[in-house]
Amino acid sequence: MDEADEARHADKMRKKQAARETIMATKTREKGLLIVHTGKGKGKTSAALGMVVRAIGHGMKVGVVQFVKGAMTTGEKAVFDAFPGNVEFKPMGEGFTWNTQDRSRDIATTRTAWDEVKRMIADPSYDMVLADELNIVLRYDYLPLDEVLEVLSAKPEMQHVIVTGRNAPDALIEAADLVTDMTMVKHPFRSGVKAQAGIEF
Amino acid sequence: MDEADEARHADKMRKKQAARETIMATKTREKGLLIVHTGKGKGKTSAALGMVVRAIGHGMKVGVVQFVKGAMTTGEKAVFDAFPGNVEFKPMGEGFTWNTQDRSRDIATTRTAWDEVKRMIADPSYDMVLADELNIVLRYDYLPLDEVLEVLSAKPEMQHVIVTGRNAPDALIEAADLVTDMTMVKHPFRSGVKAQAGIEF
Repeated sequence: MDEADEARHADKMRKKQAARETIMATKTREKGLLIVHTGKGKGKTSAALGMVVRAIGHGMKVGVVQFVKGAMTTGEKAVFDAFPGNVEFKPMGEGFTWNTQDRSRDIATTRTAWDEVKRMIADPSYDMVLADELNIVLRYDYLPLDEVLEVLSAKPEMQHVIVTGRNAPDALIEAADLVTDMTMVKHPFRSGVKAQAGIEF
Repeated sequence: MDEADEARHADKMRKKQAARETIMATKTREKGLLIVHTGKGKGKTSAALGMVVRAIGHGMKVGVVQFVKGAMTTGEKAVFDAFPGNVEFKPMGEGFTWNTQDRSRDIATTRTAWDEVKRMIADPSYDMVLADELNIVLRYDYLPLDEVLEVLSAKPEMQHVIVTGRNAPDALIEAADLVTDMTMVKHPFRSGVKAQAGIEF
């Protein structure tokens, strides 16, 4: 690239920066977000964990309740346990429905986990609350959707709440501020690779 | 739900578990994955950070190079710096092209960051390497795609490499084992909310 090209690039970037500043000047609000990660692809829980890391790093107080994961030791637990003042991490599930094979017990487990989420959301000292795989238990009708929407709509103004899991209900997407659909393009399960440490847990 | 319903549920779940076990028995391989997070939605970097957290929690050694982020203090940096034995975290960018306004300098910055990624990938003691926003610099032609593909294809067998950023090149998607497109459903920027701690940085 010669000098004239370099100058044209710099000029173009100055204009782009000015245009961006005009746009960004309109983005002035801060508010607690209701965030939903759904879709069939990988990354729903991982992206929520990434946000938890960022929040911890800013000294925020975070509550995490996992609705499906429980007994299994996960990498996230080992890290979050190193920040007991910042993050309360509660894997409260008992695995998948086909493992427990007991619907009444699944419903009771879900209720106990949801009570914990409700407690955290009601407490404005939590800057972020993650309800991991909540969409899964909603899909099974283990919790009434109306009750969940009511609790979410009454969250403290500045608190971020993240809900993950495939098949997010339409009404939840409607209520949310930030929704990403993790769309599967390629998954290694398809070529016979098993769940691996650091990736899936 | 009455007793007969409960029994039917348990029976259905036993069958589902058996079917799943048959499928899972075919997922036996372990291998280092080439992972790509792309798409216009939020969650590409966050999901990569979540995987870094899981890897750290399992005592793995992780290298992170950020191609765009640099000067800005991020939440992830504060947390990862608490695990100096596990994670080498290098924000090596200087911001966006419209901020630097200097194409030659951007290319030189990219080259320095890429040299660091190459060093990590060549070293099998790294269990995971994250090249954050590499797709962005590829899009600007700040690095030759062929060189990047060659380095990625020569990575150690058991090492996971994660590449993030929108507009992943087709050839990279082709080469990858796990690809998720973070599809934007709703983004709070659209309603005037600015980038916030814990969410975007």
